[in-house]
This record gives sequence, structure tokens and C-alpha cells, in this order.
Amino acid sequence: MGFGQRLIAAVRRVGNPVLVGIDPRVENLPEGLAANFSEDLAGLAESYVAFGKGVVDVVSGLVPAVKFQAAFYEALGPSGLLALSESLAYARSKGLIVILDGKRNDIGSTAEAYAQAYLGEVAIGDRLEAPWTVDALTINAYLGSDGVRPFVDAAAPRSKGLFVLVRTSNPSARELQDLIVDGRPLYHHMADLVATWGSGSRDESGYSLLGAVVGATYPEQLVELREVLPCVIFLVPGYGAQGGTAKDVAAAFDSEGLGAIVNSSRGVSFAFQRKDLKAIYGRDWQRAIEHAAREMIADLAAHTPAGRLTSQAGNPA
Amino acid sequence: MGFGQRLIAAVRRVGNPVLVGIDPRVENLPEGLAANFSEDLAGLAESYVAFGKGVVDVVSGLVPAVKFQAAFYEALGPSGLLALSESLAYARSKGLIVILDGKRNDIGSTAEAYAQAYLGEVAIGDRLEAPWTVDALTINAYLGSDGVRPFVDAAAPRSKGLFVLVRTSNPSARELQDLIVDGRPLYHHMADLVATWGSGSRDESGYSLLGAVVGATYPEQLVELREVLPCVIFLVPGYGAQGGTAKDVAAAFDSEGLGAIVNSSRGVSFAFQRKDLKAIYGRDWQRAIEHAAREMIADLAAHTPAGRLTSQAGNPA
Repeated sequence: MGFGQRLIAAVRRVGNPVLVGIDPRVENLPEGLAANFSEDLAGLAESYVAFGKGVVDVVSGLVPAVKFQAAFYEALGPSGLLALSESLAYARSKGLIVILDGKRNDIGSTAEAYAQAYLGEVAIGDRLEAPWTVDALTINAYLGSDGVRPFVDAAAPRSKGLFVLVRTSNPSARELQDLIVDGRPLYHHMADLVATWGSGSRDESGYSLLGAVVGATYPEQLVELREVLPCVIFLVPGYGAQGGTAKDVAAAFDSEGLGAIVNSSRGVSFAFQRKDLKAIYGRDWQRAIEHAAREMIADLAAHTPAGRLTSQAGNPA
Repeated sequence: MGFGQRLIAAVRRVGNPVLVGIDPRVENLPEGLAANFSEDLAGLAESYVAFGKGVVDVVSGLVPAVKFQAAFYEALGPSGLLALSESLAYARSKGLIVILDGKRNDIGSTAEAYAQAYLGEVAIGDRLEAPWTVDALTINAYLGSDGVRPFVDAAAPRSKGLFVLVRTSNPSARELQDLIVDGRPLYHHMADLVATWGSGSRDESGYSLLGAVVGATYPEQLVELREVLPCVIFLVPGYGAQGGTAKDVAAAFDSEGLGAIVNSSRGVSFAFQRKDLKAIYGRDWQRAIEHAAREMIADLAAHTPAGRLTSQAGNPA
């Protein structure tokens, strides 16, 4: 079973394409959570584990996948990486598809080292150890094929996936990604490369293991890219906090409501900071997160082809 | 004192622009080094620390800077990151300029998290803790200004630096970096952006804190880029193992022999695998590394403007 099939099976099982982002920041942790641990990097890291597990406990069974942002864990030094490792393993143990948002990139044997680290195993004497446990990794392909092939080679035999930055959701994405090459923006050329790199790994789902990151903040670009990348799963950031609406992301899906997962990080996992949800749930931050996740599921079901999934799976909202 | 001044002072002090790359791989460690530790990820990580410290002990005082490749440490999971942290701190304690080759990239608050992690501090209650201790970080700027400004903002007040991928040394770099936009290759547009982003941080050395990664394997591109980026320090990979010669990198320097550091990783830090050096030094792997470092210093002194530095500092070779 390829990564395409695995992800789509997970989406069908819960009946929605919601990807919950877990981006812990000390200033945004639920009241009391950071206070329960010692005030140093290791203590903060423990509170990140507690937060991540708390989010996972709420969303497992409700959404198909979670995405951990490496930067916030790296910001706590080695203790943070230990916390990331524990959090990733916990999320996988709960049956979620686990994506690490690390945007890694390098060439040759260095790219191989990243690929083995995050998607494969490291040989130690006669044994193999898996240092991290993720299902998919985000990568940056500015270095071309040399920087992508090692990741594809590691992912393919393990039914794992990759998401390549194609058109990102930030305002300055245009500075490079929209430059015109042969009459078409650069990100179209990146899209062509993604299609080529992924062509060998298309599975029965019709999708390859190589997905594309395409921001929700530029809906017309989602339309174009869905056309030129029919076999590529989209990871769509920018919904919610960054301004993208359900209507904006509708074009990311195929006619069956598949082929895309839509990310919300702050909008779901920091939902306990919303005044309206505080009024309902008080200090029960997990109920607030659940509320926001169900809201997002319903919003996507109402305004995108993903609504077709909800009726099949039995509406979880 | 800006990062430009700091790096140039370090180059002048030792009289050469050699950047030694530390890229540990289990299969390439000196005989006996891995065998001294337990055969698991933590044991391997300890052997990486021993290797990194061994390289640093040899090259500190001899070269201005070292570059640690994050991928090889990440490949050992959290234990590897602990080893990286210890190795970085050791190299800094020995007075070397320490560069972390992580090619990090993201936007907004996520880029801020990476920047605080590697170049700054993290606030914990009323205290600030520095989770990592590096002088400069490599970054990938495919995301545009939003992905660069947070790094510059963190680096500037701390006299730290950044190296942006402009034209990399690998064969497939051309797939995206050489695409023609308005009559010029994309990497020229990236170079323009690097010049703009760095313009506010130019110090008395004439250089800004924002350097550029420009491969040694395309010497004519080094010539062009040196012209369009007069205030940007070049980090030049590709010398030695990847095929770049001293003549190839000569154009990276300004007329005083400044403005560039030339990296060799395998060529120096795995020099103990060379038959000729084995014959001389036997199992004394550190003497073999020292030999290769002095060879590279002499090669650059003979064939590039960096030779002018050697005579000023007193030839260390």
C-alpha cells in the first residue's frame, strides 16, 4: 500500500481532510500547563509533550492526520527534540498519520541522512533503528532532483510520503515563486518537477507519495495547480488564522473530495484562547480544541467537495 | 562588531579562509572510535561527540571556522541532537567561528522560532536561555523575505551571521536555480534579494551579516556573483571531494583575499582514510586531518588571493 492509499484510507475512515497542526509556544500553552513543570528548557519541553498529547487525545479518531512543526521543538534545544520524539511516537500510537513539518533540504549523502532519519532507519552494526517515527516529511526542493531523490527512495519502500513546497501561503512567496520563466510562474515549473519525481510512485489511489504544499491564500493558484498535478496530494496551509476560507480551499480537492488535506494550526490547537470558547468551556482547553476541530470539519464539509466524505463516513460532527 | 568583521578577524588571525566541515557518518569514523561506545543510537552519538571534538582539537588555531552538518546528528534521533549541542559548544569554546548547516526555512513566527533557537535565546519566565550556540546558520530562501527577515532580526543584535543558498554545487541545481527570468538565471534574482536583505547590516568590514552559499563547481558563476554581490561573504562548498579546485574558487575572494570561506568536509575530516596518509600516520587519524587541513591552506594560498593573508599572518603551513 502506497502513501497515497494510506492517507486516503485515513481520510475516508474519519470522513474529513482536516490536518491539525501542533505548534507549541510557551506563551500560548493552556493556563497551568507550563506552570506544572520546572522553569527551564527541560521543563518547558515536558509541557510541550503534555500539550501535544492533549491535542492528540482530542483529535485522534476525529481527524486523519496531525502535523508537528519542528521549529518550536528545536527552539528548546536537545530537550525539545526529545519532546518531539515522544510526541510523534504518541501520535502514531493513536493511529494518526503523522507529518513532520521540517522543510528539510540538502543533497546527496546529506539528503540521504535526513531521509533515513525521518523516514527510514539507521544501521547500527547488524541492527536497524528508527530514530524518529513519522509518516511524512515536508521538504524544500530549491536544490533540484539531487535533493529530492534520496527522500523518495527512502519513502517508497516504507509507504511513507513527502510534501514539497510548491506555492507557499505567505505574502512574500511571490518574490521568487511567482517569477516568470518561459511564460509561466516558477512555481509551475516546481509543480512539473514534483509531477515527474512522483510519477514512479503512483499507487491504486491514483496519487503518488510525493505531495505538494500549496497555500490556501491564493485560491486561483490552487485551481491551476490541481489541473496540472492530478496525481499529487495537496497539503494546504493558510486556512483560518492566515485568512484562507473553506471556499478558498475547495479547488484543492478532486471530485470525490479527496486529494487534499487542509491544515489549521493555531485555529484548532490554540482554540482555547478564543473568548467565545472560554465562555463555554472555561479552563477545559481540550473541549475547546475539539469544538474548533469539529467546526472546521463542518465548514469544509459545507463548502468543499470534502462534504461527500462526511456523508459516507457518518458525520462525526 | 558585525558578523562580517568577526569572521574576517578570524580569517586574518589564522591567515586562511578554510572552513572545515564536520559530517560524521558511522561508516566513516576512525577505526576504534565507534567500537569504544555501545552499539545503539546513544553510543553512536557519543562517538560523534568524540570525533567532532577530535577534529576541533586539530583545527582550532589552524583555521577560522568549522561547519557542522545537522543531518548527520538528526539521523541519530534525540541523542544525536544532544551530541550536536555538545559539539557546537566545544567548538565555540575553542575560539572557532561555528556554522550550523541546517538549511532551515519557514515563515513568520515559525522562522522566528528557528532564529531564536539557533541565533538567539528563548524566554523562560524572566530568564533567557540559549538552546544552541552557533555563530551562523545556513538558510534556504525559497519562501522570500518573510522567511529571511526573522533570521536577520535575530542575528543582527548578536553579531551573528546567515548564509543563504544562492547557487548550490550539485548537478541538479540547474533545474530550478538556472531557469531564466527576465534574461537572467533565477539564482541572480536570489542574489539580488540577498543583497537587499543584507544591505542594512553592512559593517566596517564592508560585508553584511548575510552571506551566500555559492558552489565551487561552477567557477564562472562565482565570477559573476562576486561582481553583483560585493558586500556578501561567500560560503563556497564543493572544493575537493566534489571536484572544485583552488583555481575554481579563486574568484570568490576580493582583492585582499577576503570575502569568502571555502568548505571541505570529507576531504579534511575523513582524510585519515586516504592511503597515502595512512602510510604516514598509521592509526593517528588526527595527524592525518591536520595534514589535509594544512594541504588545503597551502593550496588556497598558492592559487587564490587568499595567499595574501598567509604572508600577513605568518604561514601556518
